[in-house]
Amino acid sequence: MIPIDSSLKKPLYEQIYDYIRLHIADGKISYLEKLPSTRFLARHLQVSRSTVELAYAQLLSEGYLESKPGCGYFANDMTGLYLERQKRHTAVFPKEPKAFRIDFSPEENEYAHFPYNVWRKLSKEVLFENDPTLFSAGPAAGEWELRAAICDYLYHARGANVFAEQIVVGAGNEYLLMLLTQILGSGKRVAMENPTYLKAYQTFLNMDYKVCLANMDKDGICIDEVEWADPDLVYTMPSHQFPTGIVMPVKRRMELLKWAAQKRSRYIIEDDHDSEFRYKGKPVPSLQSYDRKGAVIYLGTFSKSISPAIRVSYMALPKRLLGAYQEKCGFYASTVPKEQQRVLTAFLRQGYFERYLNKMRGVYKGKHDAFLAMLKKERWVKKISGDYAGMHLLVEINLKKHASEIVEEMKRAGVRVYALEEYMAREAINKKGVENTLLLGYGGLSEKEMAEGIRHLREM
Amino acid sequence: MIPIDSSLKKPLYEQIYDYIRLHIADGKISYLEKLPSTRFLARHLQVSRSTVELAYAQLLSEGYLESKPGCGYFANDMTGLYLERQKRHTAVFPKEPKAFRIDFSPEENEYAHFPYNVWRKLSKEVLFENDPTLFSAGPAAGEWELRAAICDYLYHARGANVFAEQIVVGAGNEYLLMLLTQILGSGKRVAMENPTYLKAYQTFLNMDYKVCLANMDKDGICIDEVEWADPDLVYTMPSHQFPTGIVMPVKRRMELLKWAAQKRSRYIIEDDHDSEFRYKGKPVPSLQSYDRKGAVIYLGTFSKSISPAIRVSYMALPKRLLGAYQEKCGFYASTVPKEQQRVLTAFLRQGYFERYLNKMRGVYKGKHDAFLAMLKKERWVKKISGDYAGMHLLVEINLKKHASEIVEEMKRAGVRVYALEEYMAREAINKKGVENTLLLGYGGLSEKEMAEGIRHLREM
Repeated sequence: MIPIDSSLKKPLYEQIYDYIRLHIADGKISYLEKLPSTRFLARHLQVSRSTVELAYAQLLSEGYLESKPGCGYFANDMTGLYLERQKRHTAVFPKEPKAFRIDFSPEENEYAHFPYNVWRKLSKEVLFENDPTLFSAGPAAGEWELRAAICDYLYHARGANVFAEQIVVGAGNEYLLMLLTQILGSGKRVAMENPTYLKAYQTFLNMDYKVCLANMDKDGICIDEVEWADPDLVYTMPSHQFPTGIVMPVKRRMELLKWAAQKRSRYIIEDDHDSEFRYKGKPVPSLQSYDRKGAVIYLGTFSKSISPAIRVSYMALPKRLLGAYQEKCGFYASTVPKEQQRVLTAFLRQGYFERYLNKMRGVYKGKHDAFLAMLKKERWVKKISGDYAGMHLLVEINLKKHASEIVEEMKRAGVRVYALEEYMAREAINKKGVENTLLLGYGGLSEKEMAEGIRHLREM
Repeated sequence: MIPIDSSLKKPLYEQIYDYIRLHIADGKISYLEKLPSTRFLARHLQVSRSTVELAYAQLLSEGYLESKPGCGYFANDMTGLYLERQKRHTAVFPKEPKAFRIDFSPEENEYAHFPYNVWRKLSKEVLFENDPTLFSAGPAAGEWELRAAICDYLYHARGANVFAEQIVVGAGNEYLLMLLTQILGSGKRVAMENPTYLKAYQTFLNMDYKVCLANMDKDGICIDEVEWADPDLVYTMPSHQFPTGIVMPVKRRMELLKWAAQKRSRYIIEDDHDSEFRYKGKPVPSLQSYDRKGAVIYLGTFSKSISPAIRVSYMALPKRLLGAYQEKCGFYASTVPKEQQRVLTAFLRQGYFERYLNKMRGVYKGKHDAFLAMLKKERWVKKISGDYAGMHLLVEINLKKHASEIVEEMKRAGVRVYALEEYMAREAINKKGVENTLLLGYGGLSEKEMAEGIRHLREM
């Protein structure tokens, strides 16, 4: 009765299992119908009894059969079940979104100088350690050695004075912000600069935080706007505001710290996203380095200084938040693979990171200088700001068209430029200058590409 | 007046900068005091003018100085600023938490058989491709090739029928749950089995979801309890419930799907955490494979099947949630490094994963059989459940002491056993059996360690 074929690849027990399963599913074996005993069926099919037992056990565990001790096996009620396998979907590769011939994105970087050989060598060393702990679960906040190496870097490069225990390593800034909202508690109000880093803005909204947008003057976020909005948190980029490029002077920083010091529940999130790239003088010390009250939560990343593909960011929590971190988020396993944490630790400790940074500072400065010189010759350029740092410039234009119209026209020519408006969280209250300002990134472009892009803009 | 020393390693401009900065900070140069011109100071100090200009530029950008066109440089008001660098903290390595001699944790795995050589080889190949896209930002939901490979695996191993576009790869289950709560929207109610996977429970609470705990009978979560609680979501582990080991029969699965089908807004999260490890028959097909309404969100992980250190989980979203995913979470960069995604893709595509799974299924089955045989001989063991799958057993004990007391006594002997109660989200309404049940994991233990642990238990 059950057609079985020992020449098939499919095991015998599975052939029996499939036959019975399908017959119960389509009602050919009906509810409470008694099945033959394993002994009987085995003899009948001329297979071993354990083969039939295995098929029955599987049917039992999936609920097709029921076993009544001393009575045997019975079919369960499966009426109305629709169990046939659907036809297999075929994977269709998605079309790549149309890429632009030239893309002035502020997030494009140059990877040609990445020390692949070093990274490979360190990877190999880490993997050759044959350390069994390499593949076991690690500490939630990251490997201790990496956190200590980050502390040293922060001390020397950013003036920050933190313990390794204050560092939490995570897969990207947005992930760390998700953790932060859990640490700080739900429903808080956060003040952000406008324009700002929209991914952070969207993350706060996703996490049900209320966002109040504060205007900036030439020194950065306006303290009176912060005071008026009375938030629990301020999210700011004091050392190089994105996208305006404003560097917050010490005095404003002190005012901001003073605001935070007025209530114990107030915190400042300092997103120090690309302070490594300044082309004049040395980096401005971090806001964290002035903090004496444990009000600053420092957020840093290797996305820009190494690569966005390695997905390592970190935050330095004030000590008074460590308890809440442990309680709320201490159970989350680290989101960064151990292998990568160890390669990165070696990259930092053995001086490769510093060398690579110095190299890239030179590379980007070269691009910056060339791009700035080109733009200064253009008649349609009214004012350039945000220079001498980062990987983009803000260009106020002297054209009849709005920046957003230029963006659309340029797209049709295969060139992507950006309007400052695209980085506004909401319609700015004070729009002066914004509608005439382009944002032009140069980090991923060659001088030839910059020149060609500028030629297209000139012909607008 | 400014002591500068060209024999120092510190650049001259930085010596000038530091001197002026500190004198402004401590008030020795007072507010609005005019500074010498760059030309004058350069001549006076016998340095080049550009050196002084660099120092002034830095002081300007940090806000210590103000420049009045045509008038010169003036000190800003820095009164009350406290800018001296704090003494450097010294990193103190934290003491490791006391490890137990023998740990019956259900989360411990065996890594001795991990194919390090293969992983190294694949890593090397991926890194040797010298592909510049390896270090650029990748698709938010993960690399297409990895998602397609996961689809194929899910189809063959779990009967799931999904497109690669439905797969979202992320750094761990908890991270994916954070995304899910953002996709589904805030303030939802989720029903969970009790006991359950406490990290998921805590994640939902952290994300401000309301959790209703539902009891289980021998077939898994009780549908009438779900109906009574009327949640938006059910989080369940139908193929191998953690920690009870219950396999939900097809009939109960259909009832659950039917519940979900009653309202378009209802979803079921199927956490299929360790279905790879069954030691009798073949794996039970996933709940997702029976879903015809797009109600099941499938959650899978490589933490158990490969290693918790690689931090790769994935979810298969029903098609009707893809829009919400794009809108709410499409901007989050993938949390898994590209390098690792590519190594994993090769591991899956080249058959290594299947071979490793088969190998490990044999290894864990061996441990399971040995452990089960040992326990069956013990007089204090009343009933064993959750056998023939996963990496732990539930053991009902026949002792005067409660399981939780035994846990404490054993800890003092350096042996960690677990009480089922530790996995209860809240006091169970129906506690029958729970207080007398131990949870004993064997995945990371040798037979010798198991035997020693059992000897200690026998002497309780």
